Amino acid sequence: MKAFVYGGQNKMSLEDRPKPEIRDPGDAIVKIVKTTICGTDLHILKGDVATCAPGRILGHEGVGTIEAVGRGVTTFRPGDRVLISCISSCGKCEYCRRAMYSHCTTGGWIFGNKIDGTQAEYVRIPYAETSLYPIQLGADDEAMVMLSDILPTGFECGVLNGRIQPGSTVAIVGSGPIGLAALLTAKFFSPSQIVMIDLDNNRLAVAKRFGATAIINGAGGDAAARALALTGGIGVDSAIEAVGIPATLELCTKIVAPGGVVANIGVHGAKVDLHL
Amino acid sequence: MKAFVYGGQNKMSLEDRPKPEIRDPGDAIVKIVKTTICGTDLHILKGDVATCAPGRILGHEGVGTIEAVGRGVTTFRPGDRVLISCISSCGKCEYCRRAMYSHCTTGGWIFGNKIDGTQAEYVRIPYAETSLYPIQLGADDEAMVMLSDILPTGFECGVLNGRIQPGSTVAIVGSGPIGLAALLTAKFFSPSQIVMIDLDNNRLAVAKRFGATAIINGAGGDAAARALALTGGIGVDSAIEAVGIPATLELCTKIVAPGGVVANIGVHGAKVDLHL
Amino acid sequence: MKAFVYGGQNKMSLEDRPKPEIRDPGDAIVKIVKTTICGTDLHILKGDVATCAPGRILGHEGVGTIEAVGRGVTTFRPGDRVLISCISSCGKCEYCRRAMYSHCTTGGWIFGNKIDGTQAEYVRIPYAETSLYPIQLGADDEAMVMLSDILPTGFECGVLNGRIQPGSTVAIVGSGPIGLAALLTAKFFSPSQIVMIDLDNNRLAVAKRFGATAIINGAGGDAAARALALTGGIGVDSAIEAVGIPATLELCTKIVAPGGVVANIGVHGAKVDLHL
Amino acid sequence: MKAFVYGGQNKMSLEDRPKPEIRDPGDAIVKIVKTTICGTDLHILKGDVATCAPGRILGHEGVGTIEAVGRGVTTFRPGDRVLISCISSCGKCEYCRRAMYSHCTTGGWIFGNKIDGTQAEYVRIPYAETSLYPIQLGADDEAMVMLSDILPTGFECGVLNGRIQPGSTVAIVGSGPIGLAALLTAKFFSPSQIVMIDLDNNRLAVAKRFGATAIINGAGGDAAARALALTGGIGVDSAIEAVGIPATLELCTKIVAPGGVVANIGVHGAKVDLHL
Repeated sequence: MKAFVYGGQNKMSLEDRPKPEIRDPGDAIVKIVKTTICGTDLHILKGDVATCAPGRILGHEGVGTIEAVGRGVTTFRPGDRVLISCISSCGKCEYCRRAMYSHCTTGGWIFGNKIDGTQAEYVRIPYAETSLYPIQLGADDEAMVMLSDILPTGFECGVLNGRIQPGSTVAIVGSGPIGLAALLTAKFFSPSQIVMIDLDNNRLAVAKRFGATAIINGAGGDAAARALALTGGIGVDSAIEAVGIPATLELCTKIVAPGGVVANIGVHGAKVDLHL
Repeated sequence: MKAFVYGGQNKMSLEDRPKPEIRDPGDAIVKIVKTTICGTDLHILKGDVATCAPGRILGHEGVGTIEAVGRGVTTFRPGDRVLISCISSCGKCEYCRRAMYSHCTTGGWIFGNKIDGTQAEYVRIPYAETSLYPIQLGADDEAMVMLSDILPTGFECGVLNGRIQPGSTVAIVGSGPIGLAALLTAKFFSPSQIVMIDLDNNRLAVAKRFGATAIINGAGGDAAARALALTGGIGVDSAIEAVGIPATLELCTKIVAPGGVVANIGVHGAKVDLHL
Repeated sequence: MKAFVYGGQNKMSLEDRPKPEIRDPGDAIVKIVKTTICGTDLHILKGDVATCAPGRILGHEGVGTIEAVGRGVTTFRPGDRVLISCISSCGKCEYCRRAMYSHCTTGGWIFGNKIDGTQAEYVRIPYAETSLYPIQLGADDEAMVMLSDILPTGFECGVLNGRIQPGSTVAIVGSGPIGLAALLTAKFFSPSQIVMIDLDNNRLAVAKRFGATAIINGAGGDAAARALALTGGIGVDSAIEAVGIPATLELCTKIVAPGGVVANIGVHGAKVDLHL
Repeated sequence: MKAFVYGGQNKMSLEDRPKPEIRDPGDAIVKIVKTTICGTDLHILKGDVATCAPGRILGHEGVGTIEAVGRGVTTFRPGDRVLISCISSCGKCEYCRRAMYSHCTTGGWIFGNKIDGTQAEYVRIPYAETSLYPIQLGADDEAMVMLSDILPTGFECGVLNGRIQPGSTVAIVGSGPIGLAALLTAKFFSPSQIVMIDLDNNRLAVAKRFGATAIINGAGGDAAARALALTGGIGVDSAIEAVGIPATLELCTKIVAPGGVVANIGVHGAKVDLHL
């Protein structure tokens, strides 16, 4: 089959690889219908992700069709249309039982990282019953693939951890795909304000179209002052970080109200100054 | 092997039965070291439990040693000492993923009910990895078997659902094994008062020894008045029902404070009057 | 001033009464701009509310303008436009400090019940600082008066106690003003379904217009079956009672899913059968 | 009356001052029976607390007897024995209504800081009804004064924010008065381990006597390694910071388990490195 393979720093190639096979009773083989490229894949290609060895098939998002299942799998069968979670979950370790699937002791984020991923014609899915989700045949695959990673990441790490409530004031720092996913799902809780902050006016224009009540281009250096002004100087109830650099986390701590919450989604490679 | 078998209303016998065998990849066979008789078993023998057909080996509590595991089981191996949960949990259905194991769509309370149970030399354990718990070889088996059912039932249904907090006032109606289990585990949260109510002075004496701050024999018909008097007429923050008849649930509703919680553990065969 | 006065069972009259005066340092006198008639007022007129003595000025909802304040009041001053809460809250008793204002030991629902109410030209407001809310002069008074009682009652007792979450399935039994208030505010949490149940097609038509995803006329006696069918036989995550009779509470218990919540808003004069 | 007065950096004196008088309707005058010196007072004396001007009577903890009350005070009267909270709470601002009393817009920590404090024969208490707590005449004043600040600070900021649960593993970094207060109140929730970390063996010996399950002297530089070893390398569920310097907060982040909580009690004058 065709597969997109990481070859070491800044090296990648489309290769022919053998079709994966069932290995454990809980496995499924999924024929990929739709996959996508995540910002994380770009980090891997830059050589930033030590756990991903050269030779690895990339990709951790996808929609597909079950091709085969191991003999321990009873809830899926060949032909089922499924959503692939970017997080593999064994369902039995202490973390899975506490619903902290990304900390699964033998799973977590492994696709396109520690095991071969979804940017291929077929992928082997470990722990299929607790890592795949059934979808209807008629569903829009392009929309569904957004549920593999980006929307649950924005919702769980940003919106739920940010404890948004009806009437809350919210600021989201970063208006890229993850920030926009947080914006879209923040609206589930009917906050009174969603302020989007970014350096790129195009992204901010999309944010506005997606329902931001205010947008701030932080290039002027007065993002904190402008966000505070929008909340009468008090700050926002929930400040969501969706970039992953020290300056944006620090901005969140400057604009959060007393008793408010900073929810960090970004993956930070460097330490951050916390002004306690 | 020897097994204790339900034979229909008021019929029971110790019988010879074939040793159970692995059937599904997730199964384990456990050699029983210690089991016990639950009040629920008495209900079955009276013919009150329609789901339990004659011929069933009874018992849903136990400590034992793993004899064999199915090929899908990776976290236990022969020789491991294990605690058997009275609740079988598949770990993958919607209820298991919400930690509502007793509602598992293919598990829940099935031992000694819908499948053969623990009052035998060996028992087959479905979903072994999510239904067994490892215990140390040196642990006191007689204490451990209390963790199969009675202590988690008292703790989860009574104490956790009753939302006991440091300084809370608590009343537990029923001082039988489940009420005492609630009493012992309520102490984890350091309530200021634990009032035990029962009709039997022996049981109340045990409650006193286990840490009750007050005991009330309800035979006089003034249990509600006496419980209210102990809290300055306001009522208790948590009223825990551990009997299972209409009168005791109604007593709980009479003695609970404004903003308090009634937690019902008892299994009620009849409807209860709720004075909204 | 003119005032609408309860004169005993089925007696009422528009009377001339002296204008109220400041009595305690925390009082305010409010000139009423807009008030309304609550279903509870009808109960009083029927003689159902023992705490309300003949001679009482009725009414517990209103928008008005501050006329005078006691010398302990620092956060309001004459001329301020205010919303009157139907619940008076002293802000200092144990219940107020736990945010259970309706249980305030010297307040709670007292307007038009234990003290003179808002269906008059002027009303004396005890605990003004913790029982009035500032509103902007330009605001729509007719909309604002809905915040005195009906919308917070539907939201707090129905929606918050019902623990509605994004994606939840919700049924609201009763499509009168309170049920519709619950419907409007349930939408804050973006449930996937809101099923409205009533006997009156006109009310159900309003519910549909307000955003119900399904409506059921319960006259046929199959409301439970139809509500269950809408959730694949599982039941709803939140069942909200907004009528106040035994049959509607019982309907809620029949259509709630395992692990779901029944939130009762209705004021029940009779006991309810609870099928534990 | 005699009063202990801050005179500017490193200056302090016992002075004669006029007895305070009722100023607002909500005030009370309390005759001090017992007060104490807080570490915060030492910070003031060093000149570290800009809000405290020279001439200020120090002290924010105390037990006393009501001498007089303003005309708005109905819940206390002269002769009542009371505990003085270090936090003044108006009971009516948005923060007080959200139970965030230390953020009260006109109160918070003001005694011995922005207004005269408790290290004097008499003190004026603003917002008496929501800032004083009744105590019984027979109570041990020396124990009671610990409830003004130290025990609630350890409990609320450390134990409650640290979300300790029965069976949790806990580490408390700092075994001074606040750390010990956190230790004593952590026990309310029956954690399985409480590891105390400090540089002073005498303090650690007290911790051991107060119920620590393990003590670690961090002088060797291996505190993190030793704390991790006590939890099988996983880390603690709750890491409580009770010192207030960057190194101790950083230690907390090193020893907290995945899904655990760091609760900071210390007052940090400098920024902290957060290794996201």
